[in-house]
Amino acid sequence: MTDDGRRTIGVAVLGMGNVGAEVVRILQQNSSDLEARVGAALEIRGVAVRDLGKARSWCSPSLLTDDAASLVTREDVDIVVELIGGIDLPRELIGSALQHGKSVVTANKALLADYTGELATIAADAHVDLYFEASVAGAIPVVRPLMQSLAGDTVQRVAGIVNGTTNFILSAMAENGDDYASTLAEAGRLGYAEADPTADVEGYDAAAKAAILASIAFHSRVTASDVYREGISTITTDDHESAATLDCTIKLLSICERIDDSAGRQRISARVYPALVPNNHPLASVSGAFNAVVVEAENAGRLMFYGQGAGGSPTASAVMGDLVMAARNKVHGGRGPLESTYASLPIAPIGDVYTRYYVSMKVADRPGVLSAVAGEFSARRISIATVRQAGAGDDARLIVVTHRAPDSALSETVDALKGLESVLSVSSVLRLEGTDA
Amino acid sequence: MTDDGRRTIGVAVLGMGNVGAEVVRILQQNSSDLEARVGAALEIRGVAVRDLGKARSWCSPSLLTDDAASLVTREDVDIVVELIGGIDLPRELIGSALQHGKSVVTANKALLADYTGELATIAADAHVDLYFEASVAGAIPVVRPLMQSLAGDTVQRVAGIVNGTTNFILSAMAENGDDYASTLAEAGRLGYAEADPTADVEGYDAAAKAAILASIAFHSRVTASDVYREGISTITTDDHESAATLDCTIKLLSICERIDDSAGRQRISARVYPALVPNNHPLASVSGAFNAVVVEAENAGRLMFYGQGAGGSPTASAVMGDLVMAARNKVHGGRGPLESTYASLPIAPIGDVYTRYYVSMKVADRPGVLSAVAGEFSARRISIATVRQAGAGDDARLIVVTHRAPDSALSETVDALKGLESVLSVSSVLRLEGTDA
Repeated sequence: MTDDGRRTIGVAVLGMGNVGAEVVRILQQNSSDLEARVGAALEIRGVAVRDLGKARSWCSPSLLTDDAASLVTREDVDIVVELIGGIDLPRELIGSALQHGKSVVTANKALLADYTGELATIAADAHVDLYFEASVAGAIPVVRPLMQSLAGDTVQRVAGIVNGTTNFILSAMAENGDDYASTLAEAGRLGYAEADPTADVEGYDAAAKAAILASIAFHSRVTASDVYREGISTITTDDHESAATLDCTIKLLSICERIDDSAGRQRISARVYPALVPNNHPLASVSGAFNAVVVEAENAGRLMFYGQGAGGSPTASAVMGDLVMAARNKVHGGRGPLESTYASLPIAPIGDVYTRYYVSMKVADRPGVLSAVAGEFSARRISIATVRQAGAGDDARLIVVTHRAPDSALSETVDALKGLESVLSVSSVLRLEGTDA
Repeated sequence: MTDDGRRTIGVAVLGMGNVGAEVVRILQQNSSDLEARVGAALEIRGVAVRDLGKARSWCSPSLLTDDAASLVTREDVDIVVELIGGIDLPRELIGSALQHGKSVVTANKALLADYTGELATIAADAHVDLYFEASVAGAIPVVRPLMQSLAGDTVQRVAGIVNGTTNFILSAMAENGDDYASTLAEAGRLGYAEADPTADVEGYDAAAKAAILASIAFHSRVTASDVYREGISTITTDDHESAATLDCTIKLLSICERIDDSAGRQRISARVYPALVPNNHPLASVSGAFNAVVVEAENAGRLMFYGQGAGGSPTASAVMGDLVMAARNKVHGGRGPLESTYASLPIAPIGDVYTRYYVSMKVADRPGVLSAVAGEFSARRISIATVRQAGAGDDARLIVVTHRAPDSALSETVDALKGLESVLSVSSVLRLEGTDA
């Protein structure tokens, strides 16, 4: 209750980075709107930070604490907003908060990718909410549409650009013709890449989001280790040039898909890799730090969601939406849907996925090369869509684009190509996104 | 309860058109998935139709009834899905269903545009859900993202292409160079336009959707009559040619916007009109029967939602999402948010809205014309962005594009232009969408 007898909902915020600071600002600046929407005032009970000494705007010093563990169990806290990042500490704090009957809102994709099951079970037992819209694609509503709007449909495929750092780097490489290393350095200077960029550029972040998306889209439990993953650090300027020649652009995609095995049983493929995307595909024009997710469902058809995938304010928007909904549930009763894993579909290995390959190789500039190369594809029943010869003499290259085939057959073919005498080196192998059979 | 003791949720479907038939099909074909997601079996208790004699697939004849009024109050019905269309009858049936404690899912935009307030009040009193995702933009999740995902943000603007018929016609005119009348006829032949196309081509359907979007985006009650409306029946091939020259395309837009009055008080502008959209704007590439909605919010920034805006299966997807959520609430307790009108922002007249104008006029081909025309704009402090002279002699035309100015000043200027001796006629006036100041 407030002093004048209005009902209040106590909020604890864990972490005061970019997103946390924005959440605290919005809670304070928009308090009357938020109260009208919730039906109760949202009051910040405390903000847990690592370093109490650091100066902070938008936050009264009396709210700050470095004792997060006590904050999340306080009697007057109804909802905990976790924005610390990392895994072990937030896992413990969120678990404790849920056990104490607090609803939890988190943006922590790394944690959720592995521990949604554990946390959702605790939330279900305690009859509280666990919301995580901000964990995938920043401000873009994706989690709620998949869990709720499409709850009566059958999602077939989710394909998205969900990592802003890699999309910034790939867009800049395509635009400026610069190489990977210098573009990564530039991204770091501009604040688009972290000091240790591994989680982004090697696809770990995108894989965590793929695990979350696959879990909710297919009502199964998919964890980060179930996601096949390749990063972008091997992408060259040659690849971008070849992509342009093929009227494509290179994007790091997170793809979640229902696929049938030979007996017609459904399985899940979840994978992250840089792929050639045709320029007329809706994901091709998603550039810079923007994110987009394309959902294909049996009845809805193809849907696309587009917007800012990162940054303090956009991510805070998603956190605040969850916070208002969790608070409404505290006031009016009821709960949002938690994890749904009834389908329990198994994970298909990457080798079973049908994809298209783009293979660029340095070859000896002499007759018979194409025949030898084509022979390796046809030996594995892979149909070639286009072959292009570039350069001549010492710089002779062969660029092959295939039709769809099992990834295992494609990857065996690449191994075989490497063994051909006339193939000097396979410089690049990328998959190609598209609907061609 | 089912025979084997499982809990069931009884569903009544009103109307067996394209969407109703798909809803019935999905309920029957996907029953085990739906049961797993809801936590109870969804069972069809009855389907109300006008003509019992008509043959229907996917529906056992024993379920059919022509007594909708009795069906919606049956004891064993928990949720009513209204897909009849029209206003008076569904208003009565939905009101009765809500009063009897049934949750309601509807796709009826015409009804909601005027009666959301009345129905939401009944739903609130009865502690049941009133869901209507399918009323705007078919399969595209827009209502739930605005009401829930953005519940903690401040929406500034919603601009969308939400009518497939007019978008099909405008896209076809732009592509083929055909005139309005023949394109409308073609749309009718292909099933994209109804026998009486007035509701679509004159913008009534888009205005109803604008009223719904403005109401939820701005937490105020906005009805269809609050929406300024112009249709597309006056758009000519000349307009499409001029649009192309300006690197624009013509789209029927539904725009909902917060605008300040001179004292800084917030008001709502809701309007529907055909506008020139720059080709690099995300809405420009939305063609054919597709829909898209762009939402601009203070923290989220610009979001776009894209997909199929009409058709049996896509609309049924949205209905089914609502149905599953309403059923979950019946099983687990709780309710989704209903109408939120606390902000009660007043409606701004179209004259107060800042827009840009494109004005095409036939002029006398002699010196001094441009000066006279420009004088009328400058007299009302309207800045001209570009002037283009097309044709010569009897076919001389002047095409003016302005910067942003109050719509009232622009419309007064057009009236004044009509009075100029050197202006033979004002052939076309369209607004221009874009961010230029």
